Amino acid sequence: MQLIDGKKIASEIKSEIALEVEQLKQQGKKAPHLAAVLVGHDGASETYVAGKVRACEEVGFKSTLIRYEEDVDEATLLNTVSDLNNNDDIDGFIVQLPLPRHISEAKIIEAIDPRKDVDGFHPVNIGRLVLGMPAFVSATPAGIMELLRRYKIETSGKNCVVVGRSNIVGKPISILLSQKAYPGDATVTLCHSRTKNLGEVLRSADIIVAALGKPEFVRADMVKEGAVVIDVGITRVKSDQTKSGWKLLGDVKFDEVAPKCSFITPVPGGVGLMTIVSLLRNTLKASRKEIYT
Amino acid sequence: MQLIDGKKIASEIKSEIALEVEQLKQQGKKAPHLAAVLVGHDGASETYVAGKVRACEEVGFKSTLIRYEEDVDEATLLNTVSDLNNNDDIDGFIVQLPLPRHISEAKIIEAIDPRKDVDGFHPVNIGRLVLGMPAFVSATPAGIMELLRRYKIETSGKNCVVVGRSNIVGKPISILLSQKAYPGDATVTLCHSRTKNLGEVLRSADIIVAALGKPEFVRADMVKEGAVVIDVGITRVKSDQTKSGWKLLGDVKFDEVAPKCSFITPVPGGVGLMTIVSLLRNTLKASRKEIYT
Repeated sequence: MQLIDGKKIASEIKSEIALEVEQLKQQGKKAPHLAAVLVGHDGASETYVAGKVRACEEVGFKSTLIRYEEDVDEATLLNTVSDLNNNDDIDGFIVQLPLPRHISEAKIIEAIDPRKDVDGFHPVNIGRLVLGMPAFVSATPAGIMELLRRYKIETSGKNCVVVGRSNIVGKPISILLSQKAYPGDATVTLCHSRTKNLGEVLRSADIIVAALGKPEFVRADMVKEGAVVIDVGITRVKSDQTKSGWKLLGDVKFDEVAPKCSFITPVPGGVGLMTIVSLLRNTLKASRKEIYT
Repeated sequence: MQLIDGKKIASEIKSEIALEVEQLKQQGKKAPHLAAVLVGHDGASETYVAGKVRACEEVGFKSTLIRYEEDVDEATLLNTVSDLNNNDDIDGFIVQLPLPRHISEAKIIEAIDPRKDVDGFHPVNIGRLVLGMPAFVSATPAGIMELLRRYKIETSGKNCVVVGRSNIVGKPISILLSQKAYPGDATVTLCHSRTKNLGEVLRSADIIVAALGKPEFVRADMVKEGAVVIDVGITRVKSDQTKSGWKLLGDVKFDEVAPKCSFITPVPGGVGLMTIVSLLRNTLKASRKEIYT
């Protein structure tokens, strides 16, 4: 069994990006510039956005944080999006989700210029991904693809089972893994809450992507010997074994599943750490106009 | 075994649309208006476009056909698209594919206003489909969904195997059938040229969508008793049994597969006939601004 070390890979990629930024600066070009819009004071959102800003600093990007209180209205936010679209100094930006209920997330996302949509949430980027065109791919699926690539995991002709059909993980990763490309060319089955005999389907999988958000759902008896297991779940549960009183659990019962796997991602230290570097890579691509010319 | 009668359903839907057009006119509103752009003189394209224009007449739509010779340049075509985008009298339009090699199909399609993209090929419409938002769905997948709906075929929790990963059939139908909706909520496996043991995968299917373009590929031994079989293939092969010297074959060996099925679409007379009515329905939706407000 080989552990897929998200921490190590994420750190390598950050170094690669930092080097590229250094070169850009030496060529007299400006550093990539990411803006983040944060509404309200949700604890998790605060943590995520702070992590993104910190990561920008680490690799030499410029970053801008725009904050609004919980009661900001939709029109104000749409204006901000429009300003960011038109600001030539900003290469890419994100609006941290979730937004308060009185604001339509779909409307905000559709207002973002696809060329600056480094979260890859705009329908244009999702449509382009489906069509196999250049696109900003959202952080988690992009991170999974990168881990498969760096560990040289064979995907062509493999039976891949994706559990969970969310817009930001399950659907895009199932599309990516069935594309004519590497990583890809897999025979992908997308499972969800209505799937019958999920255990049986999982046992047929060479590659499992667990993204259903149920802690320790995938048990050893659902995994075949030699499978590759990618655990996207991350749920915070109470624990009397940690100082903080909390611990993070994946969708896979790691201790019992890991011994059966050829490769497995731990939680924490797996896919989660790749998401911020995916965002950094997208921002670098945006600054170089690699996706949209 | 019940035959899914595409001819009957297509005819019913045309009558429904004609009735709605009649009502629009009685309300003093204009009839829906579809424009088609045809480049060159490819035989199949000529036939398809003529069929679309004729169908418009049958249901009371206005239609406009714009023709160019094979050697038209990309800039001219982009201008035409722009004119059609800005022409308030045109509700929706299509550019018949394939285009000559010197013209970028992707560029032409991306230039179409998604609100008039009644073929559903624009990345915005594909992205919206993936996200479960209102979208123009392309003709073949929309036609398949309508057949499932009209025959009240259960899809929730069923194992559905889609063979073929084309942008216009395999990918969108696999996404639609796994959506949280009816028809949908199926456990979908997308198969393609790299899939190993395809026969085995097919034998596990409650619903098969064959869209690989290989005549009579799906044989009786690949289909389980009671399966629903949707045959999207349509290949013209030489025949000494027809007057024309040609016959149309689907991707399914109908004679031997049909007796095992609960439902099956014939070729011809199945999915193919639904594509034009899907286009008409999209044009009606465009004229009513049902998808984009």
